[in-house]
Amino acid sequence: QSSVTLYGRLNTTVENQKVNGGLSKWVVANNSSRLGFKGVEDIGGGLKASFNLEHGFQSDTGTQNLLSDGKPAAFWGREAWVQLAGSFGAVRLGNFTPESYFATADYISMHNHDTGSSSDELYDFSTYRSKNKVGYFTPSMGGLSASLSMSAGEGNSGEKRLIDTAVNYVAGPFHAGFGYAKHGDVNQWALRGLYEMGAFTFGAYYQIAENGYAKKYKNGRLAAMYSMGASEFHLNYGRATDGDQYTLGYNYNLSKRTKVYAYYTDRDTARGTARSGEFSSLAMGVRHNF
Amino acid sequence: QSSVTLYGRLNTTVENQKVNGGLSKWVVANNSSRLGFKGVEDIGGGLKASFNLEHGFQSDTGTQNLLSDGKPAAFWGREAWVQLAGSFGAVRLGNFTPESYFATADYISMHNHDTGSSSDELYDFSTYRSKNKVGYFTPSMGGLSASLSMSAGEGNSGEKRLIDTAVNYVAGPFHAGFGYAKHGDVNQWALRGLYEMGAFTFGAYYQIAENGYAKKYKNGRLAAMYSMGASEFHLNYGRATDGDQYTLGYNYNLSKRTKVYAYYTDRDTARGTARSGEFSSLAMGVRHNF
Amino acid sequence: QSSVTLYGRLNTTVENQKVNGGLSKWVVANNSSRLGFKGVEDIGGGLKASFNLEHGFQSDTGTQNLLSDGKPAAFWGREAWVQLAGSFGAVRLGNFTPESYFATADYISMHNHDTGSSSDELYDFSTYRSKNKVGYFTPSMGGLSASLSMSAGEGNSGEKRLIDTAVNYVAGPFHAGFGYAKHGDVNQWALRGLYEMGAFTFGAYYQIAENGYAKKYKNGRLAAMYSMGASEFHLNYGRATDGDQYTLGYNYNLSKRTKVYAYYTDRDTARGTARSGEFSSLAMGVRHNF
Repeated sequence: QSSVTLYGRLNTTVENQKVNGGLSKWVVANNSSRLGFKGVEDIGGGLKASFNLEHGFQSDTGTQNLLSDGKPAAFWGREAWVQLAGSFGAVRLGNFTPESYFATADYISMHNHDTGSSSDELYDFSTYRSKNKVGYFTPSMGGLSASLSMSAGEGNSGEKRLIDTAVNYVAGPFHAGFGYAKHGDVNQWALRGLYEMGAFTFGAYYQIAENGYAKKYKNGRLAAMYSMGASEFHLNYGRATDGDQYTLGYNYNLSKRTKVYAYYTDRDTARGTARSGEFSSLAMGVRHNF
Repeated sequence: QSSVTLYGRLNTTVENQKVNGGLSKWVVANNSSRLGFKGVEDIGGGLKASFNLEHGFQSDTGTQNLLSDGKPAAFWGREAWVQLAGSFGAVRLGNFTPESYFATADYISMHNHDTGSSSDELYDFSTYRSKNKVGYFTPSMGGLSASLSMSAGEGNSGEKRLIDTAVNYVAGPFHAGFGYAKHGDVNQWALRGLYEMGAFTFGAYYQIAENGYAKKYKNGRLAAMYSMGASEFHLNYGRATDGDQYTLGYNYNLSKRTKVYAYYTDRDTARGTARSGEFSSLAMGVRHNF
Repeated sequence: QSSVTLYGRLNTTVENQKVNGGLSKWVVANNSSRLGFKGVEDIGGGLKASFNLEHGFQSDTGTQNLLSDGKPAAFWGREAWVQLAGSFGAVRLGNFTPESYFATADYISMHNHDTGSSSDELYDFSTYRSKNKVGYFTPSMGGLSASLSMSAGEGNSGEKRLIDTAVNYVAGPFHAGFGYAKHGDVNQWALRGLYEMGAFTFGAYYQIAENGYAKKYKNGRLAAMYSMGASEFHLNYGRATDGDQYTLGYNYNLSKRTKVYAYYTDRDTARGTARSGEFSSLAMGVRHNF
């Protein structure tokens, strides 16, 4: 009847974490596990209708994702959209991840796709909004593509007008991206590059944000990967106005779908206390895609 | 192993809404989006076991459906039942939509299947209960079928004994229905007709309810559709004891599964203030079934 | 793309219940209905990656499972884990049912797999923990298998170090099991046997728990089944330090997946008031697996 694809990811670590210099503790931790449904209908004449519903859950406890106040996040909080696409590009309605993030911070987070305790804590997420959006995506033109999403505040508390835009460019081994977002008076932009050089891949982004907790917040990050057979060696280093973060990681790909991995990650607050504090973790995990 | 059908609907609009004469605002809105699982097992000897689980979510935000107080509604609040069917008819247990509603208000809501900002605000929903029910459905006998559902209050706050019954009849282009429901001391009945005449379809229902906010609440509605190729033109007009509501709609069916559409809907409180106020909206949307 | 199995169970009863000697009331009740996704990836070299996500819901109301305080339980509260298995056995991470329970109380609950109003109310669940676990499962060695799971408290309120271990043994018609669990200072162990003798199956377990509400809590249970064609006749009797519970049941298997059944169950508090009180119910139901 319908051709829906069910997909997902369980990504679970066992970690020895140390928070704000306290005693270390053992935890089983989730790294952005998810379950999704998606489908595409070929309408003919080059037109396609598609949808995506993506749910985030905690693979350590079985709980649906929670907000920072402990209340449940939107069940389909990762993605919930319907789209019409054709030669003109694509128009998307609903709840979807900001393209400004995908084009920059997410793109170079190669060691564990920006999840869990080694996720990017320095990127400025102040303008990050998913819900109530209308988005337009250009077709790819010689490796260049762009997108623009907007939402109105709709009278919701804490919500204002949002503009989120991204540009991506790929030419052989060279990948570049740009993201800009403005939510009310808060704005941020970031520029990203990534280069594949044989067994090595190098990536970097630089972000500037103007928001409530810093007059001008600056943040940069470097990422490097070396592949050898099923093994990947990773280095990821970020430096921002108020702190630093680095991760050393090793991934062993058991298959295209499943990897086991280990990393050490460390975040400090060398230049300020605005962030959530000092943190380090030694982690081992399994990521299984389905 | 099992033969479960996954199905669903994303139905999302961009609307310019005006509430109680205030300033108009732009919103992205959900129109009863859903995700379901259903299956039928042929046991043999004419006996079939089946089930249905149907989840309602908000395609604009990704949130599961909410109650009017903002708390989450039952996750499988649309349908959650198991059924045994045979030559005797069918017996169903669990949570399911009142047949009295399907037989009347829902049946003639052709322009956007009674969802979103143009849904029927005048139908009296006081007796509408889904949960904790036992239902019996007759087989179809020469176009005639009937159903009876019951639930006890089970000591739950606000719940009392419920009886919900419906009769449906189809003879060629003529369709008729009747619904009656009684919850505690509150009751309502409605009668519905629908007639297909070439490219035109005409439908109407009339409802009388005796409940808390009006001694005798009366409500009637007319609906008309004109089909031309992939286009549908809709008119829907309701008039009740305390107000009026009308919708002018246009649907363009891109395929059997996907339509784009536009409507203008207006609700007033010309004869009372019991309802939720004046409201109008100009909407454009996409509905995609999978 | 992926080979995920969707499975589930709707198990719904209509019951006439009597609580603490009060008036009897009619209810439609859920008996541990569930919906799950699972998959196995054959990685090669004897290695397999697998996962399981299992959601519990109330088939009478459509609500996701609730905690005793009425708040929602973890959505994937039944199972949410990823596993790597090979000749060495299996290592599992996440949220999963205690093996000490599966090996004992659950194993002999044959009349309705320990669900609903006739579920085992005497088994001591004080050490029952599912989340944040690391588990190791031995391969089966001549009918013998064992498992060990652990979790740290992780600083969560009410959580302490957990050890949960089980041993299972099968030799033809003879099945035996042992479970031991320790959560902080609370511990319990139980021993179980089950014997198949033609149309008869007999099972029993005995449990001793040391926990907060009794210096030494003792609990034993007997279960017997007689099969005749599609019919099963069940007797289940438990006796504990503070009360008794028995169930007389009849199941008629319409197919391998679907049964209709009836039971009478009764729980008293003859030797104490620690439990949730006196309760009896006459129930009829349908269980449909998919």
